[in-house]
Amino acid sequence: MPIADREGRTEEMAPSAVPNGTAEAQVWVLENGRPDPRLDALAIEEPLEIRLRAAWTATSGALPVFARRGQRASQRTVAITMRTPGNDAELAAGFLHGEGILQAADEIERIGRSGDPTLEDAKRENIVEVDLRAGVLPDLAGLERHFYTTSACGVCGKASLDALRLRRHPSIGPGPVIHASMLHDLPARLRAHQALFSTTGGLHAAALFDVEGHLLCLRENVGRHNAEDKVVGWALLARRLPLKDHVLMVSGRSSFEILQKCLMAGVPIVCAVSAPSSLAVALARDFGITLIGFLRGERFNVYAGPERIAALAAR
Amino acid sequence: MPIADREGRTEEMAPSAVPNGTAEAQVWVLENGRPDPRLDALAIEEPLEIRLRAAWTATSGALPVFARRGQRASQRTVAITMRTPGNDAELAAGFLHGEGILQAADEIERIGRSGDPTLEDAKRENIVEVDLRAGVLPDLAGLERHFYTTSACGVCGKASLDALRLRRHPSIGPGPVIHASMLHDLPARLRAHQALFSTTGGLHAAALFDVEGHLLCLRENVGRHNAEDKVVGWALLARRLPLKDHVLMVSGRSSFEILQKCLMAGVPIVCAVSAPSSLAVALARDFGITLIGFLRGERFNVYAGPERIAALAAR
Repeated sequence: MPIADREGRTEEMAPSAVPNGTAEAQVWVLENGRPDPRLDALAIEEPLEIRLRAAWTATSGALPVFARRGQRASQRTVAITMRTPGNDAELAAGFLHGEGILQAADEIERIGRSGDPTLEDAKRENIVEVDLRAGVLPDLAGLERHFYTTSACGVCGKASLDALRLRRHPSIGPGPVIHASMLHDLPARLRAHQALFSTTGGLHAAALFDVEGHLLCLRENVGRHNAEDKVVGWALLARRLPLKDHVLMVSGRSSFEILQKCLMAGVPIVCAVSAPSSLAVALARDFGITLIGFLRGERFNVYAGPERIAALAAR
Repeated sequence: MPIADREGRTEEMAPSAVPNGTAEAQVWVLENGRPDPRLDALAIEEPLEIRLRAAWTATSGALPVFARRGQRASQRTVAITMRTPGNDAELAAGFLHGEGILQAADEIERIGRSGDPTLEDAKRENIVEVDLRAGVLPDLAGLERHFYTTSACGVCGKASLDALRLRRHPSIGPGPVIHASMLHDLPARLRAHQALFSTTGGLHAAALFDVEGHLLCLRENVGRHNAEDKVVGWALLARRLPLKDHVLMVSGRSSFEILQKCLMAGVPIVCAVSAPSSLAVALARDFGITLIGFLRGERFNVYAGPERIAALAAR
């Protein structure tokens, strides 16, 4: 599976920050009423179009996939999402995995920048093409769910998980068990590698650690969800899924969607700097995920799966 | 236009916090390795289904609207979005306004909880029905844009604004001019009314002020975007659009989507506690919106539209 664009450049797979995620803008700083003009760094937000080439079935017409000008007959735009440019092949792979459309790297024939010769370079920078291997039939049901913003139908509480097509998904298996002291170090490691956040103050991050706390991959993005997609996509393309001996950490809060992507990737321990939502906790408890919130300094809250924290497993 | 459900209960229109936005959960607080079981308040996150009743045109079949079990022929599910329950009619109205589907309260025949007698009460709590008046033909093109997550096609920088169907939208007109000292008070007023944030630490807020700094409406939600939808929906239902003499403030950061909803609602001054993205700044500059970021204490940054800040207008 060559993960390369038409010019043969391969995507960067190493754990690194986004190289060109900021733009400069003239701003006026007003402090105590006095204006001071300055150059400020902004986090770049731009749309990424994800095009999927697959054998579309007769039922695909009912799904919200659109043929766009210049696309080959077998190719469809399946999503456009706002993101900070960088690691776009990972974002596309992780996004499609979270939607249940892509399971493994072996299903990919090619992933990379658009090779469409009719487009200007600037447009091609914001399009990733994912070509599936002949014979790979993606489960397109995930697309409908996606196009309903996040979920699937109007129900409440735990019943939502049924509707969200997750009920048939297997729970995360037992293990690993970690010590609280390992978790205490993660926020500082996350922050130390957040190159763009320190410049712009405007980016989220997601990071993958092994159970000894070594950082494997960190990605920054204007949104938490796409930062997580980039990390899961990195793991998928590196053939590291499922992530059963790993800890995933996100800046900010944890929502249903953050947990759902972790479940799809097999992550047993999820940490966030801030609070979880009620549905994030419900999903974690139903599917055996350990969910940590308010991870700050020597302190954190365990919302689900206490058996993976040594101090609680022993009780 | 009766804004009421089938039992005749009218929606609460006063500026108030969400009444029942939290749930309790058993958690374990670990501090310095010692576990301490406690009850913690969580921000509730649940899906809201928005159903629109309108005269669907022959071309509607190409759009991602789905007839669901139990729906009348003229009714379609147009979105499902995660939200903190409360002010759901406002959320639906504001969401549809941001998508360009709904312009004014007069277009609405009825908005409220689902009256579907085949559904359990718990399911009806998570469905809002919007019935348009006979003869009102919604511009459904906005739906396609929505189903592409946020935007429309793979282009970059300022060109994105073309693709996002905004180019033909008129710019915000001149005025009002405000003093920096008025803005200094807004964060404290926002925080003072964020009832759920102080309990859960997990909610965003959007608030509408007049140019004297009086709070008109504040809404809390698990996501910033839906908090803003609730505020705009409140204004739409109260027949206060366009919001041309108002300041809208959001907790957290400002993105393309935050600014796009403000443009649709005619808001001239937008403030955020944290950083804007590059595309938020581009949209603000192109459409004449004053964009303030890092509004904290006696200090803030002006990213666009300095002519509405007295200290900068005078220079």
